[in-house]
Amino acid sequence: MRIVAADTGGALLDEKYNPVGLIATAAVLVEKPYRTATLSVVKYADPFNYDMSGRQAVREEAFLAVELARKVKPDVIHLDSTIGGIEVRKLDEPTIDALTITDRGKEVWKDLAKDLQPLAKKFWDEMGIEIIAIGKSSVPVRIAEIYAGIYTARWAIDYARENGKAIVGLPRYMTVEIRSGKIHGESLDPREGGLFGEIEAKTEGIGWELYPNPFVRRFMVLEVWKE
Amino acid sequence: MRIVAADTGGALLDEKYNPVGLIATAAVLVEKPYRTATLSVVKYADPFNYDMSGRQAVREEAFLAVELARKVKPDVIHLDSTIGGIEVRKLDEPTIDALTITDRGKEVWKDLAKDLQPLAKKFWDEMGIEIIAIGKSSVPVRIAEIYAGIYTARWAIDYARENGKAIVGLPRYMTVEIRSGKIHGESLDPREGGLFGEIEAKTEGIGWELYPNPFVRRFMVLEVWKE
Amino acid sequence: MRIVAADTGGALLDEKYNPVGLIATAAVLVEKPYRTATLSVVKYADPFNYDMSGRQAVREEAFLAVELARKVKPDVIHLDSTIGGIEVRKLDEPTIDALTITDRGKEVWKDLAKDLQPLAKKFWDEMGIEIIAIGKSSVPVRIAEIYAGIYTARWAIDYARENGKAIVGLPRYMTVEIRSGKIHGESLDPREGGLFGEIEAKTEGIGWELYPNPFVRRFMVLEVWKE
Repeated sequence: MRIVAADTGGALLDEKYNPVGLIATAAVLVEKPYRTATLSVVKYADPFNYDMSGRQAVREEAFLAVELARKVKPDVIHLDSTIGGIEVRKLDEPTIDALTITDRGKEVWKDLAKDLQPLAKKFWDEMGIEIIAIGKSSVPVRIAEIYAGIYTARWAIDYARENGKAIVGLPRYMTVEIRSGKIHGESLDPREGGLFGEIEAKTEGIGWELYPNPFVRRFMVLEVWKE
Repeated sequence: MRIVAADTGGALLDEKYNPVGLIATAAVLVEKPYRTATLSVVKYADPFNYDMSGRQAVREEAFLAVELARKVKPDVIHLDSTIGGIEVRKLDEPTIDALTITDRGKEVWKDLAKDLQPLAKKFWDEMGIEIIAIGKSSVPVRIAEIYAGIYTARWAIDYARENGKAIVGLPRYMTVEIRSGKIHGESLDPREGGLFGEIEAKTEGIGWELYPNPFVRRFMVLEVWKE
Repeated sequence: MRIVAADTGGALLDEKYNPVGLIATAAVLVEKPYRTATLSVVKYADPFNYDMSGRQAVREEAFLAVELARKVKPDVIHLDSTIGGIEVRKLDEPTIDALTITDRGKEVWKDLAKDLQPLAKKFWDEMGIEIIAIGKSSVPVRIAEIYAGIYTARWAIDYARENGKAIVGLPRYMTVEIRSGKIHGESLDPREGGLFGEIEAKTEGIGWELYPNPFVRRFMVLEVWKE
């Protein structure tokens, strides 16, 4: 199968490791054997001006995934929202009310569905491709999360070149390595069966260090500086 | 200590990775240092005709564990059912009603207890060996799960020899490797301290591939085909 | 940042792996890159006479952490109690009642706060250092837990020298290795990013074995004996 998925991750941190805002939404095309992406795209947010309620993220993910899917025509699109693997085009009010999620979650989804349900319906009518809110259970969503972390590292390099230094937090239990001409990232959870990603990047003249975020176990911090 | 445990796992999958039915119930004898089985037996189910309610599994596990325990006389039998480490021979209706499990779980156990409570009582009277519903906390139960996955791989090989190909899903975060004359399996969770298993198998003339199940994170898919 | 944290762990086990009592409270100073301790201290409990309610542990941890913090003057102290990262000096009755924890947890904390709130307030007034009940999210708390396991191994060596043999249970998913002149310990969870610790110890004339606790998945047992 060919699956497009999207996820948002990576946060700009201040010197005390407080999150300022999220950085990268990545969409990926994942094909068998489902360990990395065949293709990836990114949309950067402005971490200094970020809506942390979670609504911005899901909306960006849906639109970026659809954009990539128009080109690569996958069998299905996976979004990172755990509402039971439901098809987004079917998300009308009664369906949302019937979901076994919190009332707060229902309000968020009623709001989100205003944009996303027509988007999903149009995409289904035109392309015959479903958008499914499958969430954490999806391996392609996890691969998108890893790519969000890798693109976050590239953002940090660019930011450090301009501003001298950047401190970013990576998505959950993943690591990155800045190599010559590329950034490699991978899951730190061996139970996931070896998920990883790689993108090209200008990496010369940059120093970096990766270490555990002392306040958030299982999350790594990446510091990048101009050398 | 010498512990007998049983568990069921491994599923036949269709081309879209939907489960058709479960494949293997394994019972194991586990002895210090508790990393693998000294002895293992399997009972295969018919995955094309499988009761997915979970009742079939626990019943098969209990009977297979007792069968193995009659031979090897362990100190205790562990079943994969998380009802607080209770002795199965004591599971009468009032005891089940007092368990802190769901009402649905109580109905299932009242039904199961009809067969299993007399089995456990008889086994205790004859052999002085307890059957304990200890569940996921038990390392021998996890080793039985790993063996269920290894036997599932052997089932897939046999099925592929007859039908050309098989796609099976392994139990949670475990991997298998088809080697010459044997199948090796191990946990992908290093926190478990290195649990593994191995059985003999005819493996010549078989091709295989292992990769993450794209829809169920932390579960691996094994494809086997006749070469 | 420089963080002092404390945690209690390691249990004396009987021959059937039942816990007799906890062994070690460790306090650590953790500095960037937050993978191990710069400094560690231990206070041993009497496992044969241990209050398993959890109250003894938190109290010991707070006092030991403050003792270490007086010397090393960290930026903050982390305690292993998951009540939302709240400052301990602010824990009066109305604040505890407003916590989203169980009623039982509130009773425990009202009792604990009698000692700990004045301790934290005094420490804040004198040193300007906060004591935060941050719990499992803190990496320094996890490093303290790993050191509690390492000190437990040293306790086991000393106990075995006197009594011939000791069986102890280590804190969750960690391992220890008794080397010449030292004990090395590390997390078995790679998602934590490589947390470890090491202390000096007299290790000659001692045999040892490490294996999974058959009844408690993801916990290891250490046996030590006089050779």
